[in-house]
Amino acid sequence: MATVFSRIVKGEIPCYKIAENDQFFAFLDISPMVKGHTLVIPKREVDYIFGLEDSEIAEMMVFAKSVAAAIEKAMPCKRIAVAVLGLQVPHAHIHLVPIQSEGDLDFKHHLQLTEEEFKEVQEKIVKQF
Amino acid sequence: MATVFSRIVKGEIPCYKIAENDQFFAFLDISPMVKGHTLVIPKREVDYIFGLEDSEIAEMMVFAKSVAAAIEKAMPCKRIAVAVLGLQVPHAHIHLVPIQSEGDLDFKHHLQLTEEEFKEVQEKIVKQF
Repeated sequence: MATVFSRIVKGEIPCYKIAENDQFFAFLDISPMVKGHTLVIPKREVDYIFGLEDSEIAEMMVFAKSVAAAIEKAMPCKRIAVAVLGLQVPHAHIHLVPIQSEGDLDFKHHLQLTEEEFKEVQEKIVKQF
Repeated sequence: MATVFSRIVKGEIPCYKIAENDQFFAFLDISPMVKGHTLVIPKREVDYIFGLEDSEIAEMMVFAKSVAAAIEKAMPCKRIAVAVLGLQVPHAHIHLVPIQSEGDLDFKHHLQLTEEEFKEVQEKIVKQF
């Protein structure tokens, strides 16, 4: 069965898309730690980030770097933090989180945003590409 | 002034080294969240992970993947989590943390290990290369 992320890539589940290329896809985390929290995934369904081929993990980080640059320009932050946990959804994903302090990377803290707020964040970031 | 991590690479500050190649260096975090928590750094002093050139960030992830594989074989864990925060030491570093649950990636939780414990962890991981 396709993972929820593969269904997002296929458009079967809606998302706030940030960017994509032939191999990778970026979209807003629906349960963000802070505004601008984005997930980067490979289109190929691989459970574990370190299960990717060397060339894939290399290209995924370069893609994530371009997404991080756009988030950083769009959202007030000091840095874009990076995190990969990978125990929940069996489809490798990199969290990119615009942080003002180290405490902002907190997997126990989630914002509830309205559709309008998600769209506003999406537009701000997409504009930076 | 050289960063504390550059001084570790040069051997001016001791560390529990895990691996190195011409560009990157891995060593045990001295204030680990869990046993096996390792830092991967570029030898070149770059403050921000996304300040690395595309080729560097790509090769750094491939190096980190090889280190993660060794940690995973050596330490009891479900996955190797990845995190980059980057607000404290101005020298880009990837945290590789062997986790049993998502809660194990907790920047507020630190173990105090003895020199013997660090050496034991180091030996276990280094043996896996």
